[in-house]
Amino acid sequence: MGEALVSIIEGMKRRTVDEFVKKAVELDSPLLETRVKPVSLVTIEKGENGNGVVASREDMEAMPRKRLKKGDSICLDFGDHYVGYVTLKLNSAGSPQDAPAFLRLKFAEIANEILDDSSTYEGWISKGWIQEEFIHIDVLPCELKLPRRYAFRYLEILAIDTSAKFQVVVEDAELTAVSAVSMEDVKPVEGLDEDLQKIDRASLKTLQDCMQHVFEDGPKRDRRLWIGDLRLQAKANYATFRNFDLVKRCMYLFAGLTRDDGKIGACLFTEPVMQVDDTFLWDYSLFFVSILYDYYQETKDLEIVKELWPTAYCQITLALEDMKDGVLDTEKNAMLAFIDWKDGLDRQAAAQGVWIYCLRHGKVLAQLAGDTEAEERISRLLEEALKNAVSHFWDEEQGFFVSGSSRQVSWSSQAWMVLADVFDKEKSRKLMLHLLEVNPEMGVSTPYAYHHVIEALLHVGEKEKALELMRTYWGGMIRLGADTFWEAFDPKDTNASPYGNAQVNSFCHAWSCTPAWLLREYF
Amino acid sequence: MGEALVSIIEGMKRRTVDEFVKKAVELDSPLLETRVKPVSLVTIEKGENGNGVVASREDMEAMPRKRLKKGDSICLDFGDHYVGYVTLKLNSAGSPQDAPAFLRLKFAEIANEILDDSSTYEGWISKGWIQEEFIHIDVLPCELKLPRRYAFRYLEILAIDTSAKFQVVVEDAELTAVSAVSMEDVKPVEGLDEDLQKIDRASLKTLQDCMQHVFEDGPKRDRRLWIGDLRLQAKANYATFRNFDLVKRCMYLFAGLTRDDGKIGACLFTEPVMQVDDTFLWDYSLFFVSILYDYYQETKDLEIVKELWPTAYCQITLALEDMKDGVLDTEKNAMLAFIDWKDGLDRQAAAQGVWIYCLRHGKVLAQLAGDTEAEERISRLLEEALKNAVSHFWDEEQGFFVSGSSRQVSWSSQAWMVLADVFDKEKSRKLMLHLLEVNPEMGVSTPYAYHHVIEALLHVGEKEKALELMRTYWGGMIRLGADTFWEAFDPKDTNASPYGNAQVNSFCHAWSCTPAWLLREYF
Repeated sequence: MGEALVSIIEGMKRRTVDEFVKKAVELDSPLLETRVKPVSLVTIEKGENGNGVVASREDMEAMPRKRLKKGDSICLDFGDHYVGYVTLKLNSAGSPQDAPAFLRLKFAEIANEILDDSSTYEGWISKGWIQEEFIHIDVLPCELKLPRRYAFRYLEILAIDTSAKFQVVVEDAELTAVSAVSMEDVKPVEGLDEDLQKIDRASLKTLQDCMQHVFEDGPKRDRRLWIGDLRLQAKANYATFRNFDLVKRCMYLFAGLTRDDGKIGACLFTEPVMQVDDTFLWDYSLFFVSILYDYYQETKDLEIVKELWPTAYCQITLALEDMKDGVLDTEKNAMLAFIDWKDGLDRQAAAQGVWIYCLRHGKVLAQLAGDTEAEERISRLLEEALKNAVSHFWDEEQGFFVSGSSRQVSWSSQAWMVLADVFDKEKSRKLMLHLLEVNPEMGVSTPYAYHHVIEALLHVGEKEKALELMRTYWGGMIRLGADTFWEAFDPKDTNASPYGNAQVNSFCHAWSCTPAWLLREYF
Repeated sequence: MGEALVSIIEGMKRRTVDEFVKKAVELDSPLLETRVKPVSLVTIEKGENGNGVVASREDMEAMPRKRLKKGDSICLDFGDHYVGYVTLKLNSAGSPQDAPAFLRLKFAEIANEILDDSSTYEGWISKGWIQEEFIHIDVLPCELKLPRRYAFRYLEILAIDTSAKFQVVVEDAELTAVSAVSMEDVKPVEGLDEDLQKIDRASLKTLQDCMQHVFEDGPKRDRRLWIGDLRLQAKANYATFRNFDLVKRCMYLFAGLTRDDGKIGACLFTEPVMQVDDTFLWDYSLFFVSILYDYYQETKDLEIVKELWPTAYCQITLALEDMKDGVLDTEKNAMLAFIDWKDGLDRQAAAQGVWIYCLRHGKVLAQLAGDTEAEERISRLLEEALKNAVSHFWDEEQGFFVSGSSRQVSWSSQAWMVLADVFDKEKSRKLMLHLLEVNPEMGVSTPYAYHHVIEALLHVGEKEKALELMRTYWGGMIRLGADTFWEAFDPKDTNASPYGNAQVNSFCHAWSCTPAWLLREYF
């Protein structure tokens, strides 16, 4: 996910479990490196829909012949989305270089970012995320080895200024792409329509580029381990790359780096030191339970269940602190649970779904861990939670779960109640069809929330409806030229951003990688 | 000097004399390094005259306590002008650093540059000269060791953006100042008024900061060996630091790197390869003769005279190619000789002064080198040149030398004719006094040209008048807070620039260092 909110907890106390952190460190591996060359020079212009598109292409052989004088630029297309380190071979042409060359480098995940003007950025998250560098080169020729990592497909090199006497020549460009996994390790899905194969390919690429030393949410932004993203990434990874160590490492990181009461954070940092952020989300902490459950289902690794069960169980216990009358107490903080970025979304009902979903997993884990006491307690909590789901949230007349004092009907509430199996499959199926039919205004705004709607449809056997939505949503990004899937996408407003400005949006974002899993599991 | 003009000679052929270049390389020495700490934090605001001044100061101890959030800045004062490399120790405060810190560093030779807005720069030389960096820091804390060299006294660190969660802290800042010489090697002039001592001090500092691996014109811009500046620097150096090797190295560089016909360039580069620029100025090429002459006068090194005399003599021979009827042919190119930046200046008469000045030196060198043939030829040229100086340029009625078809009366024409000893000392003295009295509109615009006016006054014994001008001009810069003297200064317009914008002006410029020499030689 992104920065769902700005949480600052002054003087927060952290707890480190050295044993878990040590295991996490041991599970770290060198990344796979791939040398990538740009495939063509491109010009990017506003297309019919107002967004940047590749308007023309030129062979790479033309590059070293181009002399960039003040204001000139070239744009390199690396042919696909990558994450990595760039080296440029630069030279000068004309008279001797009599001034520093002043260059601007712009890295763009999608073509439209090339047209962005960073000077106009006024969004509420840091401008520092915009992948743009301003560089003085005192002496040409030089090999410019950029020290930072970028996530991009397009690289624009602009000569902000040279001098009247010399021009800059880009003789060569190379990218060392990095990831924990290789695309060659996964076979594309077969027997599906071409558009779905494209969706699968972009999902895989999204997941690959987010798999670094941790499962990152987005390699452009925030380049960080968020637990909500991790849950979906891990599941997509099981269906594709099957890198179990990386999941294990991330679980140990979350378990080893907590708040002093054991609460698992929404995200954590591995640099400059390993530490949990001071951001906590009710649903995200609980997802640790599900992640451990899913990991066990894939690996049957009982050891780690026993080892991490106390941490998982602790999340259930702590979750209760934020509940009142058996449901999430959203009065003190409407954003206690994340669920989705959607403006105005009442999260109480969906949170109840998450609660039940995680309790179900917790019960299985308790059993596996031989923790009878916990198992019994969770059984009671589950029973109560299911009862409350109906008594607090079900509106028989409307045929929907409603949320909060405004009795809001939202897509997310229905999706999570279905995923939580509050009703039996048939009743859940009818609910989902009713949802599609009525199409309530309070929809979903992120691939993360879309995923849960689609997963709910698949969960009740409505494959065609699920595919339809996938084609509209993920397919919508593909139709806009996406190589990887985005953090935020609104088919009705292709420039939408949760941050007030799409320049800082991440266009390769973990939580949108799930089609690769869903297409493999359900089709 | 700066970039007097943009000269581009397509396909220019160069000649390298390996023997001279080898000697130049051998004469290179490691620079002296001095660790410098900032002395205080300052705020800079517009003063009464509209220029930036230090409005308040704060102890350095306050620095590590300051937390820079988006838009916050601090400004460090290093106490004097320096040239060197900066290292910053940066950290973060607040919650974990959840975004790259995006910083702008602004290096300023004078306080006013801190108030400059580089986005408004539209001058005709490269924006790349503005000493400003935009830097992303992915992981704090870090030691930021800036790879480029800067010339500055003030360093502003602005947090363009951090995030709502963290702030940037500048824990420490250090400068490794570099120069070929040390201020400790020169005693301040004694027995002079305080204002002149200040002028002397700033002159010395200017010279020191321009003395690097070559005599640079300005360590901010162009950081390069220009021969017009070298001539004055060498003379100031003889009176102060007395680093003969650096002069010798520079002479070998100019002699070793020429146009294929042997013409010495106006400037040359030592990186990435040693090569002469494709800029030639008639007076500048001739000054090689004077530089060799001056060097001999100081060192009595007859060896080098014999070695470089053919190169020097070649400049005299080649100078003739640009002359017609015994004077510089300015019809084909009004900027053939530099003389001064002054707009509208007719350079023909002043060039005649330079010609005579250099012929006199050439005659002595020819004699020393035992080149009788050249000596005789130069004698004839000199005689002719003196005659032409009067017949072409002297206007008996006005009592001035006039220049060009417009018969322009300028300060530079008179100064150079006086320095050339076209008349005897008394007549020259009267000419200089007449000049001061009449005060013709076509004055001088750079310290370089001011120097020649003052030197001419001293040459004819008008010490008080010389001091008066020095106090107005160099003293004017001191009154504006100068630690080093500037490339361009117009007492009536403190924002004047030869480049259309003062942001790229150099405020430590070699050709303004001469008071240290003049005060020592004449007082």
